[in-house]
Amino acid sequence: MMQGKFLEELSVGQSAELVRTVGEADIVAFAEVTGDNNPVHLDADYAAQTSFGERIAHGMLSAGYISAVLGTTLPGPGAIYLSQTLRFKRPVKIGDGVTARATITEIDEAKARVTFATVCLVNGKPVVEGEAVIMVPRKAA
Amino acid sequence: MMQGKFLEELSVGQSAELVRTVGEADIVAFAEVTGDNNPVHLDADYAAQTSFGERIAHGMLSAGYISAVLGTTLPGPGAIYLSQTLRFKRPVKIGDGVTARATITEIDEAKARVTFATVCLVNGKPVVEGEAVIMVPRKAA
Repeated sequence: MMQGKFLEELSVGQSAELVRTVGEADIVAFAEVTGDNNPVHLDADYAAQTSFGERIAHGMLSAGYISAVLGTTLPGPGAIYLSQTLRFKRPVKIGDGVTARATITEIDEAKARVTFATVCLVNGKPVVEGEAVIMVPRKAA
Repeated sequence: MMQGKFLEELSVGQSAELVRTVGEADIVAFAEVTGDNNPVHLDADYAAQTSFGERIAHGMLSAGYISAVLGTTLPGPGAIYLSQTLRFKRPVKIGDGVTARATITEIDEAKARVTFATVCLVNGKPVVEGEAVIMVPRKAA
């Protein structure tokens, strides 16, 4: 499907999610594509000496999962990402299953802007929380 | 270097940046690792019909470059990412050179929290703007 939801199809409370398991290779790939080679992500010996005790995923990898929900499912293709806030609450470790969820909290019909509460959860606990604002195309447009 | 800057080494106005050129392969890799297969990033024919006119990079890829500056250079390893805001201002296209820059705007000595103005620029114009808050280790700790 090349077109996501239109503004007229959205209502407050609608929600979508995806689940991704973070593999070691995902962290390596994310480091390569962004240049973020912080050893807490890549070096097990270094990470063992930190407060995390082991390698952790980049926070922006979880943020990428939020982008994936918004960009592929709700509202999906055709929407334009205007802003995102991110509060990093807990680390994500190798093997963790991350549920990224976006829920509509507000619709500005006049401006065609939709606000989403966004969260990533591991074992039911939030690892990243925040808010996204998206411009959504109208059906008539 | 496995240890970044300590809180005592930081002052308001300090800045660091990195420059990355966005290749087609970077966008494909970012889509694979996050699951964000929105066709505006991957499908040239689809993208040509959008307001962007061509394929654009994921906004979170630029956000990843900000994470790279913070995580590798200023303050670097040992720091803990607490929050990030992102306002997506302009698209990033294949071949664009992105300068990601972080500048210290505030230091909370008591809480060991440092606020950065963060921006990604293409041809001198902001593509992503926002603010990061980082917890930075003390030398004595």
